Amino acid sequence: MIARTGGVIQSLFIAGDWGTTRLRLALCDGAAILDRKDGPGIGALTVSAEATFLSLIMDWRRIHGDLPAYLCGMVGSRNGWHEAPYAVCPADPRSLRGSALRFAVDGLDVAIVPGLTCSNPLGAPDVMRGEESQILGAILLHPALSRGKHLLALPGTHTKWVALEDGSVQRFMTTPTGEFFALLRAHSQLTKAAPDTQPATPAGFVQGMARGRETRGRAGLLQTLFETRTRQLIDGMKAEDAVGFLSGLLIGGDVDGALDCFGKPRLVHLIGDPALAALYAEALAGAGVANEKLDGGDCAFAGLRAIFER
Amino acid sequence: MIARTGGVIQSLFIAGDWGTTRLRLALCDGAAILDRKDGPGIGALTVSAEATFLSLIMDWRRIHGDLPAYLCGMVGSRNGWHEAPYAVCPADPRSLRGSALRFAVDGLDVAIVPGLTCSNPLGAPDVMRGEESQILGAILLHPALSRGKHLLALPGTHTKWVALEDGSVQRFMTTPTGEFFALLRAHSQLTKAAPDTQPATPAGFVQGMARGRETRGRAGLLQTLFETRTRQLIDGMKAEDAVGFLSGLLIGGDVDGALDCFGKPRLVHLIGDPALAALYAEALAGAGVANEKLDGGDCAFAGLRAIFER
Repeated sequence: MIARTGGVIQSLFIAGDWGTTRLRLALCDGAAILDRKDGPGIGALTVSAEATFLSLIMDWRRIHGDLPAYLCGMVGSRNGWHEAPYAVCPADPRSLRGSALRFAVDGLDVAIVPGLTCSNPLGAPDVMRGEESQILGAILLHPALSRGKHLLALPGTHTKWVALEDGSVQRFMTTPTGEFFALLRAHSQLTKAAPDTQPATPAGFVQGMARGRETRGRAGLLQTLFETRTRQLIDGMKAEDAVGFLSGLLIGGDVDGALDCFGKPRLVHLIGDPALAALYAEALAGAGVANEKLDGGDCAFAGLRAIFER
Repeated sequence: MIARTGGVIQSLFIAGDWGTTRLRLALCDGAAILDRKDGPGIGALTVSAEATFLSLIMDWRRIHGDLPAYLCGMVGSRNGWHEAPYAVCPADPRSLRGSALRFAVDGLDVAIVPGLTCSNPLGAPDVMRGEESQILGAILLHPALSRGKHLLALPGTHTKWVALEDGSVQRFMTTPTGEFFALLRAHSQLTKAAPDTQPATPAGFVQGMARGRETRGRAGLLQTLFETRTRQLIDGMKAEDAVGFLSGLLIGGDVDGALDCFGKPRLVHLIGDPALAALYAEALAGAGVANEKLDGGDCAFAGLRAIFER
């Protein structure tokens, strides 16, 4: 279905992925993205969410008039713009199209997609906001995901591991792997000797991943992380490889832990930033698991478009 | 033996525990501490280590003349004042008395106690600087530690677990548990809702410790830490209890991991800050292990005094 505004049938809309650290807005015409704008995340607002949003879309409004907007992510959290309730798993992301929180702002229709909540494989409550729209988009772009069982991983600040069955999210688990890595890089002594911009070297990554696997079952992160420092002090590890070592310990531990919790599939679908997805792919390969990579941005906008077109 | 300065037999000396974050200096007369001064850690110097040291002891010099100084901790690291080499384990801390790095500064004799290095129970290199002097003091204050096997824990920013046999350090392991907790408290979303000064509540601590034990073997920190947030969002956990939950997950994981690595003794000697030692004692009790608490400051000065009196 397409939207009507003032009696004119139109396919123009605004889609926005508004997370804690970043807002990514797109002016869409059906499947085509006509323009993009970036703004501050919900955790970095200097003025209200409403003022931020209206100021960013001003140019689009001037040209195209009042367009409906579809938003996902932390914008729907308690500390966001308006709180959108969580849908409870098992939940088919396609059903979210009917349950968006809708409100009007300065004559514009805005809809916020609800997040998901579940009891994760360890029996704890878990939540997502924003990834449900990426998953919806992934299902629509890759119809094979709507049949059978699949394990998805959405690596990031808070990585999500998602068990999908016949296109419905059964359960998922959040691992704050990216946040950990960033905190340790920025503030700890572990990799202080490497410049802030030093990426994870492949050699260091492989070594960290192997070390995590070697000590698995005998020890956890608390017992192995300090090696990142001592291998530089005593073993002659290069400072740049220490960054990779840290990344390998963390991502290897994330992947192995998730495979323990969800069971080991033949294939994992990786949705997200290509550089980060490549590291997860390597850790999966080390565990004998294949992967297929989907672009996170494509999936998010496909999901929001589907909500617009419901 | 007592020191001679200018032909006068004297028992006055300066003892200093100079770590990354803090310098604690004491003017000692044998076992008596006459005065104390605190200064910046090696990682927080605004002027050189030498200038910092000389300015802090100026008053003591004016009254008592040139006194010998005995220092331990990161002051002896590569980025400290002068690098003191590590002694290799197994090492009897009492033997460190003969191997201090000695140099003169503005007419003062300064000695820096070497740190220790070992291959830890996981086969990785490990290091300590400063704790060896606390261990030496602990052995001297508690002669029972000089006979038989003992497991010591020195909880802190970088907790040290130490296997002692007949007064000799066989091996040890560093767990950056305190650093982790501080980083997550200061920067992550996990406990953001609680005020910065919120201590770990007993109820939250017990819950976190129990949860870590419940998931042990099935999952690690990466898989459980996010619960600190979701239990507040979904389960109604109070923000203040979330701080305790985080602490319980981390300290419980530290204790259980160490008992796995070193074997489970009847008793662990805890050396350090009383409030932190109490949390470790609780986690040990939960694993069926008794504890005896020794004051960290007393042990450090007793160790440095022994080096002065060698």
